[in-house]
Amino acid sequence: MRWIAFALLAVAALAGVVAYIAPASGQADGEAAPIFGVKIPPGYRDWRLISVAHEEGNLNDLRAILGNDVAIKAARAGTLPYPDGTIIARLAWSYDPLEESEKAFGRLQSFVAGPPKNGVQFMVKDSKKYAATGGWGFAHFNDGTPADEAVHNTCFPCHEVAKARDFVFNRYAP
Amino acid sequence: MRWIAFALLAVAALAGVVAYIAPASGQADGEAAPIFGVKIPPGYRDWRLISVAHEEGNLNDLRAILGNDVAIKAARAGTLPYPDGTIIARLAWSYDPLEESEKAFGRLQSFVAGPPKNGVQFMVKDSKKYAATGGWGFAHFNDGTPADEAVHNTCFPCHEVAKARDFVFNRYAP
Repeated sequence: MRWIAFALLAVAALAGVVAYIAPASGQADGEAAPIFGVKIPPGYRDWRLISVAHEEGNLNDLRAILGNDVAIKAARAGTLPYPDGTIIARLAWSYDPLEESEKAFGRLQSFVAGPPKNGVQFMVKDSKKYAATGGWGFAHFNDGTPADEAVHNTCFPCHEVAKARDFVFNRYAP
Repeated sequence: MRWIAFALLAVAALAGVVAYIAPASGQADGEAAPIFGVKIPPGYRDWRLISVAHEEGNLNDLRAILGNDVAIKAARAGTLPYPDGTIIARLAWSYDPLEESEKAFGRLQSFVAGPPKNGVQFMVKDSKKYAATGGWGFAHFNDGTPADEAVHNTCFPCHEVAKARDFVFNRYAP
């Protein structure tokens, strides 16, 4: 009986660990974005990194592209098209000068992520459900609230220029 | 007996899952960097994201700061000083214009991570072992090979300007 109790406790403890560290990639209870019906995937901030970017011009942000496990596997292998179940997240932050870098380098040269900016975007691959838009559903959220339909109508036309890479601009940064 | 066997199998299965998805943060078999003796931690590319940055000037790169589980927990909570066991990784890539963005935006404004550039750096917290350098061991690797001692002598003097933040330049990007 002691062994059973110990083993079951160990199961429970390990299950707890798994539940804690496993990245959540299901759909949340939040509001769905228009047109594509995509919700913010829970736990996306813990996803692994695909790449980073800097947008100049009006956007003027620093951004990170994260992917769920399906996305990371495909991005690393260069698999095209991305398989169903892929979710790619685009986070962005204000492009802020780092004060300490002036002291360290003798000139301002380091720019770092400040507060969140330009919303959070997701691309969700479902080749049947989103067949009309290259198999991708698009979503844009500002502070957790979906942007309106007009915004979501701009996603696919813009991503169409990356059709040769399955409509995805980013490449995996090794 | 059946229950014992089942429970032990479940323990083994879950332990396998944990071993598979837990980020590796031990020390690798590769060559140790001089002075601090830090090796490249296996699996660091799968660590979670702390923040992103762009270095202008001669460095001219895009970078990502990743952290092991101890680092992520502390960075999120704003815990200072970082606890022993913290490892922070600084990856960097070439700052490359994204050709497709010219087509999408009508002007060049997107810059993305190209090939790896300026090496990979690590900060390892061990308040006793590295007491003389604020509790941090520093390491710089180019293509997996440690940089020389002269390079490693420059780490701490530069990071000293961030003493108020436990010698860490980055902040967690929410």
